[in-house]
Order: sequence, then structure tokens, then C-alpha cells
Amino acid sequence: MKIDEIGEFGLIESIKKDCITSLQGVVKGIGDDCAVFHSSPGRVLLLTTDMLVEDIHFLRNTITPYQLGRKAIAVNLSDIAAMGGTPLVTLISLAISSQTEVEEIQELYRGMREICGLYGVNIVGGDTVASPDNLIINVSLVGDANEQEVLYRSGARPGDKIYLTGTVGDSSAGLSILKHEISPQESLRRHFIKVHNEPEPLIKTGKVVAGSRLASAMIDLSDGLLSDLAHICEESRVGALLLRDKIPLSEELRSLAAHAGFDPFDFALSGGEDYVLLVTVPATKTRDFELAYEDGTSAPLFLIGDIREEKGIRIMNENGSVEELRPAGFDHFRS
Amino acid sequence: MKIDEIGEFGLIESIKKDCITSLQGVVKGIGDDCAVFHSSPGRVLLLTTDMLVEDIHFLRNTITPYQLGRKAIAVNLSDIAAMGGTPLVTLISLAISSQTEVEEIQELYRGMREICGLYGVNIVGGDTVASPDNLIINVSLVGDANEQEVLYRSGARPGDKIYLTGTVGDSSAGLSILKHEISPQESLRRHFIKVHNEPEPLIKTGKVVAGSRLASAMIDLSDGLLSDLAHICEESRVGALLLRDKIPLSEELRSLAAHAGFDPFDFALSGGEDYVLLVTVPATKTRDFELAYEDGTSAPLFLIGDIREEKGIRIMNENGSVEELRPAGFDHFRS
Repeated sequence: MKIDEIGEFGLIESIKKDCITSLQGVVKGIGDDCAVFHSSPGRVLLLTTDMLVEDIHFLRNTITPYQLGRKAIAVNLSDIAAMGGTPLVTLISLAISSQTEVEEIQELYRGMREICGLYGVNIVGGDTVASPDNLIINVSLVGDANEQEVLYRSGARPGDKIYLTGTVGDSSAGLSILKHEISPQESLRRHFIKVHNEPEPLIKTGKVVAGSRLASAMIDLSDGLLSDLAHICEESRVGALLLRDKIPLSEELRSLAAHAGFDPFDFALSGGEDYVLLVTVPATKTRDFELAYEDGTSAPLFLIGDIREEKGIRIMNENGSVEELRPAGFDHFRS
Repeated sequence: MKIDEIGEFGLIESIKKDCITSLQGVVKGIGDDCAVFHSSPGRVLLLTTDMLVEDIHFLRNTITPYQLGRKAIAVNLSDIAAMGGTPLVTLISLAISSQTEVEEIQELYRGMREICGLYGVNIVGGDTVASPDNLIINVSLVGDANEQEVLYRSGARPGDKIYLTGTVGDSSAGLSILKHEISPQESLRRHFIKVHNEPEPLIKTGKVVAGSRLASAMIDLSDGLLSDLAHICEESRVGALLLRDKIPLSEELRSLAAHAGFDPFDFALSGGEDYVLLVTVPATKTRDFELAYEDGTSAPLFLIGDIREEKGIRIMNENGSVEELRPAGFDHFRS
């Protein structure tokens, strides 16, 4: 049987059993944004890793080496943000062809160092090896968090409200533009490509959410709103109801959709790489949560629906009709 | 300028500056077997990562998926051993073609899980992505050590004695056999290929050395005896004199060399992937060190030379003549 027959999640299911041989110290293994490991009294280590492969995750002619370095770190920082942690140190592995220009790798590192500097992260090691052709980047990141404040995917309960910390859909619209599927005017083009190529990890926002001690679950949107909400629902054994008119879209996405004649919710619901946070909060605590959030950050906050006991994700349209949605997030091994 | 013009170490030099932006907590960044990070009073975290690329580090037709998974973990465990630490948790990133057989990846994981189980390591996370063709494995490993016992490459001083914890050269002879450069009889062939494909990380030995508190520096031999001794010399700003007749060779390597007509020291000095430990010990402490070592482990110990003030690595031949040796270790970007 080939991997494309069972898909990415089938493969992960088939290999993840027996990965934990001794429970000592392990708070959370495979299945969240980060692994969580007990380090010292009251503190936990957060561990995350992401591999970016040329021609799969990026094309060298649609992102600068500087942006690529920056983004490779940013997506890992976003996983730390999703647990409510503080990033500390990173290890970077690169596989590169010996025919690569040295300047390209220096630019890649300039992007990495710059974003690491912004978030107080030290690059403490890595591995630099030859590649027969494609460029491959693996980033591993270690963070730290208060054991009592870490937020998992599994904490959502029926009745909890669902929030997003930013608009969704712009990044995948940017990808469509880079793939020449949409051709907007220059200023819009620049906006979407920047959102796609230079995501900002929401470290501070994640810490405000976790530090409030009022939220029940959190995840960062990397696979897309529906897919990542489905991860929350699966780990928490719940369902969700979204309100279509509450899903936050940027002015730019509305304008692009009107101009190019597509439904912006296709990007907002199923696009990926938004890197905003999805947070669930018990209904009795939403008021305190919103106050603590406004107090801690100037980032926006959007209430988009609630967690339901009934499994599956449904959306209520503006006319009151409800339809079931199926996540169509990216699967590495299916076409 | 292309990377093959400056080589692997030139590239690392050009990118490693400014990687540490805040010294807080970082005991050792780039430049040792592991990065060392302060975790709790008296304890440090050890962090290491290795990327293995198909057709560069391994050929799929010369190692089984089980052995490959085992080895990918073993080489990282060896880096933890070289600091005197205890391995804790690992993150595994895989890039695989969607046309790969699921069973091959399950076998790869079986090898990983088995060796992790042997050394009490939990697989807590990773990333599984598509690859256009080659299989790529990145392993990141986190270990723990007593801050007072960790051994660095930089601690060797003139007069220190140099020890090896096992024989050298068999692994690179195994590689030559796999590349059909040597064709020995079947029993020898099996021995060398097993040494090459199934290295054993010397975790216990590393802990005995570090726990003795008598050694001054340690490194694991991955690039080859000369190259790795050169790393110790560079970081410690010293030189070394080796005694040719003290360099430990296996009976199998002597026999293979006699039969195939090559100098076994070519493999012993410049071959790689031995994964034994090279340890330096102040001359006044060698007796106590040898006693503590014998007390703690049944692994062999070979005194092979000493650290000198004069830079460079020299070897004394059996006739008393001394010649300078230049490390010819593997450089990923030079042919």
C-alpha cells in the first residue's frame, strides 16, 4: 500500500502508537501544536518542529531567501504561541545543493536571525548537509511555559465560545496570486503576497490568552480554519457551530473577491497558513476574557461561533439555514 | 560564489555570527556536539539535531528501513553521549514521496521506536511532509545533564592524555564494502556492514566519563578520528600527538586489510561514523580516571596519545619518526 492511499493523517495514526515508552516527564506527546515536557517545578518545555521542502511548501521564485528564513522560524513560533508559551532556542537543519549561491544562504539566515532577535530566540545549533537538488529546511524550537497556563487542543467543552485573533483567508489568496490563479491590481497583490510570505507569529497574543487562565483550548491556524477547528473538535470530542457573518475577512479579501468573482469564504474556511489563533472560552467567562484580552493586547478578537456536543462542524448562513462543512485542509499525500 | 567554493565549515562560519541574541540561559551555542541550555538549578538541557538525506547519507538499497530508523536516532544519541548526558525526548521530521510503501515507513519507525525504548527516549512529536523524490529524515533530540559534569570540546589542555572508548575504522570499511570498493568473504562482510548500519550510541560510557569528573573534554567520532580530534584541538586551542601503534583496530579490520592489501590506518584515522568517544584527561588524573572507568563500564579504553601545546596533529610511527597529519574528513560541499 502506498502512502497516498492512506493520506497524511492515516500515516501518522499508523506510526504514532508506542512512541511513548516511559511517561516520566511527558505531559503531551504527538497530537498538539507542541509536545509538552515537564522541566522544573511549575514549568514545562514546549517542543515543536517543522520541515519545509522546496517545490512542496515553497517555490524559490515566489519568495525571497530572506522571507523564507523568516517564515521557517515564524511557523514554529506560531506553534509556541498556540500553547501560550515563550520561545527560547532553535536548532536549524538545512539541506542545500553545493551549487547554491552562498549569498542566498546568508540571506536565508539573515531572515532567521532577524525574526529570532525580535522574539528573543537564540539559534543554538543545527546541521548543514548537502542535498542532491531541493532545498530543505527543518526548524526545531524549544519554548517554556507555566504548567498551569498551557492551553491544549483537548480542552474545549460544549457551550464554549470560539474566538479568532485575526482575519482569515488572505494568506491562501496570496498563494493563489503567486500561482497565477488570480491577478489583482498591484497594491492588492502586494498586500496578499506579504501576508503569505511574511506571517507574524502571535507570541504576545498567545501569552495574553494563556495568562488570563480563562480560555479552555487554543490552536494556531496553519491547515485552515475548518481543518484546525476539526483538530480541536477531535481532541476535545465535541462539534462546533460557526456563524458565517461573524467570520472575519479583511477589506482587501472582500475587495479582491468582488473583483475576481469568487466566494471569499472559500479562502477563509479552507485556506491555510493564516497563523492567527483560534481560542475557546467557557460561556460564563467570556466577559472577563474579553476584558483581560483588551487589557493585554491591541490585537483584534472576533467571536465566530460556539462549541456543541453534537460532532461535526456546521455553519449558520445569514438566512438562518445551517449546513455541515467538511474540512478540506491540505493533506501532503493526497492530490 | 557557490557553496562548494567555501565548503561546509566556511559556510557555517559565515552564518553562525549573531545567532545568539540574548545570552540568557545559553551555556553553549553552535560549535559542540550539543547546544547546552540552563534549565533548572544545577541542570542543563542538551539539544542536538541531525539531518539524513537519501543518496547523500544513505542509499536505500544498502540499509534496511529498520536499520535506517535505528541509525537516525543512534547518531543523535551519540551526540548526547559525547556531552555525558541522558537522552529524554525526540522530534522526528520526515519528508517522503507519496509513492513510498507504508510498510517501509512503519519499518523505519519500528527501528526508531526500538532504539528509543532501549535508551528511555520518548518520541513526542515531529512533522510528516511530502518530498518530490528523496527520503529525508531530521531528528532533534533533547537530553539532560548535570551542569557540573558536562564535557565540552574546549576543555583539553597541553599534557592531557587522549583516550578512545572503542576501535575505529570498521564503519568506513563497511561503507567501502557497500560501495563495492572492497569485496571480503561473507562473515567479514556481515561484520563491517553491521557496524556501519547499526552503530551503538555510547550513552552509558559517556555518563561514566562525565560522572567521574576527571576528564577535560569529550567528542564522539562522527567525522573521523583526525577530524574530530581537530575539532577538540581547535576549540581548546591546542595540538596533539598520536601514537600509531596505540590506535585500536579490530581483528576484523586487520584481517580485511591484510587480505585486500590496504593500510587499515587510512580507515582508522580518516574514516567516519565510528561513534566511539574520544576523551582527554589531565595526566595527573589518568590513574583515577581509569579506575573509575573500569568501575563504571565494561567498555574498552585505549590511551592513544596526548595533547600538546604546539598546534596541529602529529603521529609517531613505530620507528619513532613523527609526521604531521591533515584531517581529510567529509565535507558536504566539496568533492
